[in-house]
Amino acid sequence: MLRDFTCGELRIGDINKQVWLCGWVQKTRKLGGATFIDLRDRYGITQLVFHSDDENSASLGKEGFTREMVLRVYGKVIERESKNKNLPTGEIEIKITDVQILNHALTPPFTIEDETDGGDELRMKYRYLDLRRNVVRKNLELRHRLALETRNYLDKLKFIEVETPVLIKSTPEGARDFVVPSRMHQGQFYALPQSPQTFKQLLMVSGFDRYYQIVKCFRDEDLRADRQPEFTQIDCEMSFVEQEDIIQTFEGLVKHLFKTVLNVDITNVPRMTYADAMKFYGNDKPDTRFEMRFIDLSPALSQGKGAEALSKVEGEDLVRGKNFKVFDEAEIVVGICAKGAGEYTRKQLDELTEFVKRPQIGATGLVYAKCNLDGTIKSSVDKFYKEEDLKKWASAFNAQPGDLILILAGEIEKTRKALSELRLEMGTRLGLRDKPARRSDGTEAEGGSKFSCLWVIDFPLLEWNEGDPNLLASLAGRWHAKHHPFTSPKPEDINLLSSNPGTVRANAYDIVINGVEIGGGSIRIHNKELQAQMFDVLGFTKEEAQKQFGFLMNAFEFGAPPHGGIAFGFDRLCSLFGGSDGIRDFIAFPKNNAGKDMMIDSPSEISEEQLKELGIKF
Amino acid sequence: MLRDFTCGELRIGDINKQVWLCGWVQKTRKLGGATFIDLRDRYGITQLVFHSDDENSASLGKEGFTREMVLRVYGKVIERESKNKNLPTGEIEIKITDVQILNHALTPPFTIEDETDGGDELRMKYRYLDLRRNVVRKNLELRHRLALETRNYLDKLKFIEVETPVLIKSTPEGARDFVVPSRMHQGQFYALPQSPQTFKQLLMVSGFDRYYQIVKCFRDEDLRADRQPEFTQIDCEMSFVEQEDIIQTFEGLVKHLFKTVLNVDITNVPRMTYADAMKFYGNDKPDTRFEMRFIDLSPALSQGKGAEALSKVEGEDLVRGKNFKVFDEAEIVVGICAKGAGEYTRKQLDELTEFVKRPQIGATGLVYAKCNLDGTIKSSVDKFYKEEDLKKWASAFNAQPGDLILILAGEIEKTRKALSELRLEMGTRLGLRDKPARRSDGTEAEGGSKFSCLWVIDFPLLEWNEGDPNLLASLAGRWHAKHHPFTSPKPEDINLLSSNPGTVRANAYDIVINGVEIGGGSIRIHNKELQAQMFDVLGFTKEEAQKQFGFLMNAFEFGAPPHGGIAFGFDRLCSLFGGSDGIRDFIAFPKNNAGKDMMIDSPSEISEEQLKELGIKF
Repeated sequence: MLRDFTCGELRIGDINKQVWLCGWVQKTRKLGGATFIDLRDRYGITQLVFHSDDENSASLGKEGFTREMVLRVYGKVIERESKNKNLPTGEIEIKITDVQILNHALTPPFTIEDETDGGDELRMKYRYLDLRRNVVRKNLELRHRLALETRNYLDKLKFIEVETPVLIKSTPEGARDFVVPSRMHQGQFYALPQSPQTFKQLLMVSGFDRYYQIVKCFRDEDLRADRQPEFTQIDCEMSFVEQEDIIQTFEGLVKHLFKTVLNVDITNVPRMTYADAMKFYGNDKPDTRFEMRFIDLSPALSQGKGAEALSKVEGEDLVRGKNFKVFDEAEIVVGICAKGAGEYTRKQLDELTEFVKRPQIGATGLVYAKCNLDGTIKSSVDKFYKEEDLKKWASAFNAQPGDLILILAGEIEKTRKALSELRLEMGTRLGLRDKPARRSDGTEAEGGSKFSCLWVIDFPLLEWNEGDPNLLASLAGRWHAKHHPFTSPKPEDINLLSSNPGTVRANAYDIVINGVEIGGGSIRIHNKELQAQMFDVLGFTKEEAQKQFGFLMNAFEFGAPPHGGIAFGFDRLCSLFGGSDGIRDFIAFPKNNAGKDMMIDSPSEISEEQLKELGIKF
Repeated sequence: MLRDFTCGELRIGDINKQVWLCGWVQKTRKLGGATFIDLRDRYGITQLVFHSDDENSASLGKEGFTREMVLRVYGKVIERESKNKNLPTGEIEIKITDVQILNHALTPPFTIEDETDGGDELRMKYRYLDLRRNVVRKNLELRHRLALETRNYLDKLKFIEVETPVLIKSTPEGARDFVVPSRMHQGQFYALPQSPQTFKQLLMVSGFDRYYQIVKCFRDEDLRADRQPEFTQIDCEMSFVEQEDIIQTFEGLVKHLFKTVLNVDITNVPRMTYADAMKFYGNDKPDTRFEMRFIDLSPALSQGKGAEALSKVEGEDLVRGKNFKVFDEAEIVVGICAKGAGEYTRKQLDELTEFVKRPQIGATGLVYAKCNLDGTIKSSVDKFYKEEDLKKWASAFNAQPGDLILILAGEIEKTRKALSELRLEMGTRLGLRDKPARRSDGTEAEGGSKFSCLWVIDFPLLEWNEGDPNLLASLAGRWHAKHHPFTSPKPEDINLLSSNPGTVRANAYDIVINGVEIGGGSIRIHNKELQAQMFDVLGFTKEEAQKQFGFLMNAFEFGAPPHGGIAFGFDRLCSLFGGSDGIRDFIAFPKNNAGKDMMIDSPSEISEEQLKELGIKF
């Protein structure tokens, strides 16, 4: 080794040792006749000193040491005069008697500090310098730790990691595949897997019983901020299980990760049906760090029934029949109560109205009712609703003086979606969605109360594809599997598959943490006939189904066990644990929103010779 | 869970428990009025019995249970009358009182037994059934174990696993890349990595210090029996190290794997230069389970010198000047001594001659000398060499009565290569290359003497590419990096780079076990100028070098540390540990020699719609 110790290792007990160290120049400063250097490596910082009381040392210190230069130094560990309590090595320094410059360094295009002056583009182009920053490196150390603890947990439960192939076959049913032209079989293609789904199911047919893999997957999507064309999953599958077994096993994994990596105890992971998640949060991945549940002010309407059915519906209609057309004509009138926001100013309320009217949110307006501290209520629809009406609202919302009621109305799905966005916005404004604090060593968060986990269950099996831009155009106007085509319907709903496919519920579940979908899975179909029926509902001809998935359906004929599984989005899991919204800084070499790697300049053109060998023209 | 125990779990201590089990019907047999079933899962086999003394049980047993049917059964653990000592569960059986058929099974196309009647094609097509066979599943369990222990070892040494990207940029300098057309940037391509080489070097520039990854790599080669288009590497890199540090660290890994996975102690890993490996074994990955080193009978010749220089050369010329033209005109006359093969019959000797004359071997003939038990020597060239000449040969080979000397002559490189094949053939014939025995549980080999590890060091930096079919044609007639273009030359040889590139030695090393190259690596160039010089020698223009590898050379300008690393072929490592010659049965879903996955039928055609979106024509 070129060194005896790392830059994070030496302590007061090492005084008088003669040591070699290697690292990067973080900082240089002169003080009196002495030169001080902070030498940095992955493990820490050690102070070097070129002493004026030693001619040799002082003369060595006259070399021009610039930032990020790579040094190998030799010297004696001595006690510091002024100790630095913030640094693990802060009690010692090295009195240098030999220096070798291992490499020079140009001035970096941005500062290598926790807070950098580099913009996103620059940081991506010089990612190898960006990765030198402590904060970014610690993200990747956290990622390593999470992978390690995932393996520890699953290995103990006798899961076997099996590598499934990367060069597979295109299955246009899902999102778009990346494809790989074959040189040896011209005109044919491999495809990169969107997930190892069919392979892990085949492993269950093979009797592997418990499988996992931390594995790269690929999706050729029009990218959004938080998506990457290649991403990593913790992919798992088990045999002879029911939904409850999967939930127990992987709730255990999540608890293990929180405990071992962040020292956070997750005591309770409640469950909620998809229907309730939509009803109470307008979202299948609700952020449950805070309540602020939806209150439906006109339940009869939202259940598609007229006033005549009102008595049978849970809850009174509090908005209809007051000549306020917007509410009278809406499918749903639904709101939230923002605790303590009753003092919002006109300007703040206008901001909220603007917020919900943004095209991405799409509401036409916002109704509010401020519960004043004096007990009165002031609303934006005072024209239509009397004080006693508003009191009823307040009571429905359990609103106290000082609270703010916000109400949207319109079509059910759109309105719930818009209100969900407004709820999240209010959560953010009221500080209810604060990131978990992270210690500088990245290993421990303060307090577990800021992580809220939730299982969402009983998802619909199918959704209607109006024309999803991430799917092939030819798939529009068809039923589409909400999870994937291998998810089993609830047995009691199977008879609805042909008559009313949209109402069939699946044995599918997601785990949601702080409003982020971290994992999802299902109990699979393990029966050839049911699988064939599923493909039929999805609009496959028998021939297409056989061509694409014949191998799986055939496998089901040779003794397939009941099985199910789950996959976690590993990049998101890392960013959640790291207290960040974005996944990009938890990936060593990410691509930008246009799918480009700015550092290596990829994708790029290939040579004519390569194209010719593949037989490809554009 | 659908079961309380696995099929490998119950023991005599569990007697009288009422249990649910799940598994596959391995075998059914009737005995008297009772029916017996061997129920199988990944963990073992448990015997079920439908007793004739119990009406309910006996009647359940009348169901037609066929092979590979999936059952869920309930019953009481009872002591067996006739115990099976070969089975961990052999002291008990389950008296069944409830049976559910979870799935039916067609008759498998081959028997699911350790020895199967399925041919390769059939096994690959129905790989999910092949994987049910104990031997194949145990291979993958071994693979899991090896990955796990690799991670344990490296984690302890503070290596961080970092995932590098799969969608990268094509670098036609190496073998052929698989490429991925970009839909968003038409006409441009990603490429799949042949190794994460440049990324791991960038991680060193970033200060990651110790990196590893168990990672899929891709190479679009014309496939040979033991190659796969996608394969797995244990990829590692370290900073501030010299060759010796890498060798120590990864020799430690190999020893750790042998000890923890096979309980084999590897005490000694000798080192040999590439030059010596070629001289003594004609092979840069010699099988050192047995000696049988080459003896050069005309050292002056093979060093390209005439008789006049003979006195300066180590060893006497024992073959020239006896009017045997074949030897007189050869660049090299070199042989081996096969201990105990002196009694070989005419027929056996003819077989050996045929062996070396096969086109793949390419020798023109074989000279032998049998050392008879009576002390005489009988050779195939008695016409030219007297008894006293042959005695000198025997003495050079240290041959004893009963040994067989085998000699080839011709051009140096070809002759050594042919003799290497002959040596391996003789090793096989004499039982010197036996596979390590493996216990049925796959965890332990008998005795460590059958594993012989060797470091081969001081490889040449470059080799002349006459026209390698696995490289682009445009690269023929150029120097080619033997390891890769980032390998550093030995400092003392750098001055030869321009004058005599073929003689430059590299800081490169391979670890060879039982004649198989298991891993290889090098100390890298970390200096922009030297890297540029290397690209120049390889025939890159400055522009090409900048376009392909500019990001790396630029990175070297911002403070690159000295670094080096190694990569292990994980598939081969698994097959070596599993005592097999082929890697295919250590990969869950391998491709055949034409690069096809027979099970899913890939590569295959994709839809017109997909081609159109990519803008591709053939």
